[in-house]
Amino acid sequence: MNTTLADVGETELLNRLKKYMRNGQINDDTAEITSIEKKLLINTDLVVENIHFSEVTTTPEDIGWKAIASNVSDLICSGSEKINSFTVGLVLPPHTTLQWVESLYTGMKAAMKEFGGEIIGGDCSSGTNKMVSITAIGELSSLRLHRGNALPGDYLVTSGNHGLSRLGLALLISEKLPTKVKLSQGLINRAIKAHQRPSVPHKALKTLIECKPKSLPWRAAGTDSSDGLLAAVEGICTSSNCQAILSKSSLPKDPDWPKNQIWNEWCLNGGEDYELVLSLPKEWAEILKSELGFMKIIGHIKEGSPNIFWDNLEKIENYNSKRFQHF
Amino acid sequence: MNTTLADVGETELLNRLKKYMRNGQINDDTAEITSIEKKLLINTDLVVENIHFSEVTTTPEDIGWKAIASNVSDLICSGSEKINSFTVGLVLPPHTTLQWVESLYTGMKAAMKEFGGEIIGGDCSSGTNKMVSITAIGELSSLRLHRGNALPGDYLVTSGNHGLSRLGLALLISEKLPTKVKLSQGLINRAIKAHQRPSVPHKALKTLIECKPKSLPWRAAGTDSSDGLLAAVEGICTSSNCQAILSKSSLPKDPDWPKNQIWNEWCLNGGEDYELVLSLPKEWAEILKSELGFMKIIGHIKEGSPNIFWDNLEKIENYNSKRFQHF
Repeated sequence: MNTTLADVGETELLNRLKKYMRNGQINDDTAEITSIEKKLLINTDLVVENIHFSEVTTTPEDIGWKAIASNVSDLICSGSEKINSFTVGLVLPPHTTLQWVESLYTGMKAAMKEFGGEIIGGDCSSGTNKMVSITAIGELSSLRLHRGNALPGDYLVTSGNHGLSRLGLALLISEKLPTKVKLSQGLINRAIKAHQRPSVPHKALKTLIECKPKSLPWRAAGTDSSDGLLAAVEGICTSSNCQAILSKSSLPKDPDWPKNQIWNEWCLNGGEDYELVLSLPKEWAEILKSELGFMKIIGHIKEGSPNIFWDNLEKIENYNSKRFQHF
Repeated sequence: MNTTLADVGETELLNRLKKYMRNGQINDDTAEITSIEKKLLINTDLVVENIHFSEVTTTPEDIGWKAIASNVSDLICSGSEKINSFTVGLVLPPHTTLQWVESLYTGMKAAMKEFGGEIIGGDCSSGTNKMVSITAIGELSSLRLHRGNALPGDYLVTSGNHGLSRLGLALLISEKLPTKVKLSQGLINRAIKAHQRPSVPHKALKTLIECKPKSLPWRAAGTDSSDGLLAAVEGICTSSNCQAILSKSSLPKDPDWPKNQIWNEWCLNGGEDYELVLSLPKEWAEILKSELGFMKIIGHIKEGSPNIFWDNLEKIENYNSKRFQHF
């Protein structure tokens, strides 16, 4: 159980990891991206120990799951229906246990079973802090989503509730909650799961494509809420040069979410939510909502310099676009 | 000059880096891989501060150059004639200066000007040690090179001299040389350049493809000598389940390389040489050598369990396959 990488050496580490990868892949300098009939999208996301995760809140399986999920989330919100492959860059201190590394790959493998794709290559090095850098390749569907594709009149739609991951983190590290309140066991469970094993709405994109009214062109804006719901909406406003109006009564919150307004802050800026945030023509948004009950219409887009308002035209004050900035 | 990332924040950092990337690319979750008509190869290589480089021996420009060059080297030795694109994952301490990051990208840009490709995406995070993780995409030529494609009777061919980068490192850190000897200024210059700005034989692959005798199939083994010449030959022997015989009188050494046999060690195991190491049918190898004067026939392949011998059948003793192992 406590065998470390320093004990076994790199060759043995790579041998142990073979089973998590496409057959034979460890034995060459590069990997071939196979069975491609469509345009490809690529994304790189990295997670660093003590910045994105800590041993206190996250098991190595969960780190592996989240590293894959966050990449898949970026691919989906850009219009990739089918995940093709991943490369994995690892930095690990020599005292890391083999068990830890195998658990990391077990988590990645579980996520790939859920979302698709396979590991086809990578690199590893020693270093003082653990780091996982994943590059994901996906096949583009008929709908290329960009942040910059929103137009006035669009509805803003999201694929799920927000703030759960932030609450989950607070519960895991026994952080003080925004107000003293008794949380339901269901909410506690959903929050911890959202933080440790976030789902990604990988099937919503398929429905979005299938339900497009024939009269409309293939034009929609999309991003994910990995940096928080407001950051996602701000990204759309800035890239599309428009304003967003959010409906105060339609904030995408868990049914058991505390009513106190202070808790809205975590819904808006909690981050790590990995939901789709879309800007769509009204007709398309309404059909999508009727097809997928979990989709939520949260506001609309209007002309004007990039800004976000509540539907009573009050400017959103708690807004903190620097929340997930690293420097 | 001394403005740090902590001073300017992530948004400003990304704004500054825009000019090094494909137009608009910084403004979306993912990037599209464009103009693809061929199969794609992918490679991920990462470099870590104090493991792969230190501020003493390597400027940020050189780190950028080498990070791109090492990825290109892997693509070329697998049969990619045309470099398509790169993603860049960065971990940087907040006290890193903007100047340092811009210099890193200046070095990457210089390497891309030389070898092809463009930066299309990436990610960055703070962290205690600098790390650069690059994923490179290349288009496969008509010749897919694998380590495992060698056959008895093949000639072993390499694209250049070995040991120069190791000597360059020793000179830069004033390390004791294998023997006391006066080095020529030309050798000193070539060694330091090989360590700081290694070239990659990106044009040799084109010639290799063009000069294939029509009677021969598209079968050749290839790898690069980034982990050292012997490690490259060992990789071919192990993957192809064969033996290599190296000609003691044909070691690929700089003309001014010291004659003393102790210096052979750095030629064989120095590492970071980024030359092609190929196993080819004799006829093809000889034509290649006549087309490209810098190609060197260094030995041949025979049947037998994986091992490397000198041409007097003496087993190669200095062999140290663990040299570039991290754990």
